[in-house]
Amino acid sequence: MDRFPAIVGDENISTQEDNLKQHSGSEWSSYPTLPGDKPFAIVMPGSTEEVSEVMKVCHRRRIPVTGYSGGTSLEGHFAATRGGICIDFSRMDKILNLHKEDLDVVVQPAVGWEFLNEELAEHNLFFPPDPGPGAMIGGMVGTGCSGTNAYRYGTMRDYVLSLTVVLADGTIVKTKQRPRKSSAGYDLTRTFIGSEGTLGLVTEATLKIIPLPQNTSVAVSTFPTVRDAANCVFRVVGAGVPIAAIEILDDVQMQCINAVGSTSRTWAEKPTLFFKFAGTPSAVKEHISLVQSLAKTTGSKTFEFARTQEEATELWSARKEALWSVMARKRAPSDHVWTTDVAVPISRLPEIIESTKSDIARSGLVGSIVGHVGDGNFHAIILYNDSEHATAEGVVHRMVRQAIEMEGTATGEHGVGLVKRDYLEHELGREGVDLMRKLKKAFDPLCLLNCDKIVRAQRPKPGEVQEW
Amino acid sequence: MDRFPAIVGDENISTQEDNLKQHSGSEWSSYPTLPGDKPFAIVMPGSTEEVSEVMKVCHRRRIPVTGYSGGTSLEGHFAATRGGICIDFSRMDKILNLHKEDLDVVVQPAVGWEFLNEELAEHNLFFPPDPGPGAMIGGMVGTGCSGTNAYRYGTMRDYVLSLTVVLADGTIVKTKQRPRKSSAGYDLTRTFIGSEGTLGLVTEATLKIIPLPQNTSVAVSTFPTVRDAANCVFRVVGAGVPIAAIEILDDVQMQCINAVGSTSRTWAEKPTLFFKFAGTPSAVKEHISLVQSLAKTTGSKTFEFARTQEEATELWSARKEALWSVMARKRAPSDHVWTTDVAVPISRLPEIIESTKSDIARSGLVGSIVGHVGDGNFHAIILYNDSEHATAEGVVHRMVRQAIEMEGTATGEHGVGLVKRDYLEHELGREGVDLMRKLKKAFDPLCLLNCDKIVRAQRPKPGEVQEW
Repeated sequence: MDRFPAIVGDENISTQEDNLKQHSGSEWSSYPTLPGDKPFAIVMPGSTEEVSEVMKVCHRRRIPVTGYSGGTSLEGHFAATRGGICIDFSRMDKILNLHKEDLDVVVQPAVGWEFLNEELAEHNLFFPPDPGPGAMIGGMVGTGCSGTNAYRYGTMRDYVLSLTVVLADGTIVKTKQRPRKSSAGYDLTRTFIGSEGTLGLVTEATLKIIPLPQNTSVAVSTFPTVRDAANCVFRVVGAGVPIAAIEILDDVQMQCINAVGSTSRTWAEKPTLFFKFAGTPSAVKEHISLVQSLAKTTGSKTFEFARTQEEATELWSARKEALWSVMARKRAPSDHVWTTDVAVPISRLPEIIESTKSDIARSGLVGSIVGHVGDGNFHAIILYNDSEHATAEGVVHRMVRQAIEMEGTATGEHGVGLVKRDYLEHELGREGVDLMRKLKKAFDPLCLLNCDKIVRAQRPKPGEVQEW
Repeated sequence: MDRFPAIVGDENISTQEDNLKQHSGSEWSSYPTLPGDKPFAIVMPGSTEEVSEVMKVCHRRRIPVTGYSGGTSLEGHFAATRGGICIDFSRMDKILNLHKEDLDVVVQPAVGWEFLNEELAEHNLFFPPDPGPGAMIGGMVGTGCSGTNAYRYGTMRDYVLSLTVVLADGTIVKTKQRPRKSSAGYDLTRTFIGSEGTLGLVTEATLKIIPLPQNTSVAVSTFPTVRDAANCVFRVVGAGVPIAAIEILDDVQMQCINAVGSTSRTWAEKPTLFFKFAGTPSAVKEHISLVQSLAKTTGSKTFEFARTQEEATELWSARKEALWSVMARKRAPSDHVWTTDVAVPISRLPEIIESTKSDIARSGLVGSIVGHVGDGNFHAIILYNDSEHATAEGVVHRMVRQAIEMEGTATGEHGVGLVKRDYLEHELGREGVDLMRKLKKAFDPLCLLNCDKIVRAQRPKPGEVQEW
């Protein structure tokens, strides 16, 4: 502990109780933070070199480390289950270098994606990954996040050209230079993406950016059933219409939005598809008309599209308010929201959404479905109080199990953290998890970095893991 | 050796001298195969289980292993520098499962991308990565290849959903199930992509596929200089015109094509851009007209676009013939062709292409430039005979060094193999290469799989590596 002030300065270390707690969990996390889950100090380095020096101390003294940027992750990613220190990147929040001609930008880990896009927009440029509000590049690399733009533009895995990473022993590694394409050796960049702070700490990222689409529009279409809506999605995806986003909100979700009244209109309380379009003016027009006719043949009841930018913003507002509208329906301040996600091959989507909806209804909880349906990825957003925790957990468990049984995954974009760790063996087999454990051990043999996240450091003992 | 027939059958083992030689190198490889570089046997398993059994024997007996599918790689990837056996996947050449609705296909490693696309086209589906003719999925995963379609559609790294891999000790690992998107743990899939057979042997791949574009077209435009052509590319890329491909062929390359006369017309011997367009009919029209006007403002001398499918095929034929037209200019059967590739941030492209052209001219060799210019990636194709080897090597060395000094990479799509191994330290630093070595060691501690490719098993001794 005595060494850290010499590295980062006294003013960049905090041991204040509230701060420690806030750096180990959040009210929107589905991992119930335990009383012991907190770091003994928060250390705020200002540069890659300072991170490296801090890690050298931790390595020498065997101090566990958890990285922290936006703190918006959902599965217990930054719970300090081993104590130790939290490295908070908030001072490393600069856009270091915008290479407009090369279409890349070099940023520090505490740059938020929303701020980045505001800056880029001034140059008519765009960084597509759009996870939850508040998320920052460091954590976005950590979870391999995505969002509504992934269907058209890809996920975080497709937008990182290079990373500067500090390893567990303080070694600084740069995974690539700045070419847009490379076959030069093992893909260290992508090995770190999605590694949830367990293999190294990202201190700099070179991100791919793209020209801002000249024109965008939005359309909203309602369907009698989730299955009809999903059929529409299959047709649109199968026809290769290059839409920018395709999202589903179920009837419960639309009810929540109406009940909260945070948008300027009242919506039909039906399964609803939200489409975003982007491209040249004539391409956008053409795509809207193609989607409209496909929606019609699959039983859409309504189809509205925006004629102005204001109308587009209004139509999209319901999608934007989804999570908040469920949170606003808390019966008491102590209620929680469990936001979980899975992904399945898209043909299986109607079946799993329908059975999850029935399961939620049977449970007596309020829970909505919101999906990045073009990717086969959807969320359940479930309200529960402390006494309903096991009920909520049961719903989530059955949803994840069904996704895995459908050749899907326990998480499409939120990551594993602590909550989904023991599903990996069902999804990938013991051999796959053992290989992940080897990878972890090669990079961090002392298990200092976010130890026991993604995979347990040791194979679990009999009885340690919940029944399948 | 005695165990292999029991696993795969006598008829699936070859020790025939010519065959052994052919499985260790090719006439188009830039690695000069040495007399000792050959396996003692070629083993042809028919299933993942047989590969696993073969690897268990190799593991027990410490037998080195090199994987082989299409044999089209260029940098000595399958040279059997340690002897041992070659596992030839030619019997594993089936398309196992086409999931049309999910837009994925499960294939064995010896499926060629051209054959796959013929089969997919019958269902109006398309697999974009288009490396050299003859390349097969196993090797395509190995090199993390790409091709002309990468600018629009991405590389092999973007089209593999999941792999079944046999590790060095025979363990069978599946890296994912079939969701199109997943954040479930370390990205094992992408760890194997680009690993050139050094971490495991791919026995099955689940590939992303997309709907076949309804309409495609081609345009060809000539420019006074490479720099003018490159400026046109910047403008097109910067404007975000979603073209399907954008390729450059230099004046020497166009001369070769004319000299060989393998296309149905005579081309202007000028730096030439080849554009491919894909999309709905009106989008294609719009994109052509956008590109035409951008080409004009950057000084194009001619701009032709196809009005029919036949014209499109004719215009694209020059691009298709590039490599063969240089090979056809061999002065003697003993002449060689050295095809190398680098990638740089796209703003640096004109400078490195110009200096490489001057360097080739100074060297007295015939060498053309062909580039996937939208990705900042280009090839030099150089003719040389045995006495000119050092001269050719010098040109390639200076081109690679310049690319690395421009924050680029030693290889954009061909991979490292043996030839580019010692450039990695210049590109990534010793720390990056050391981390790659750790990764290799974690996956293959005995260094049985294609040992010494990508990274040397041990750090090189002083004097072992060429001067920078």
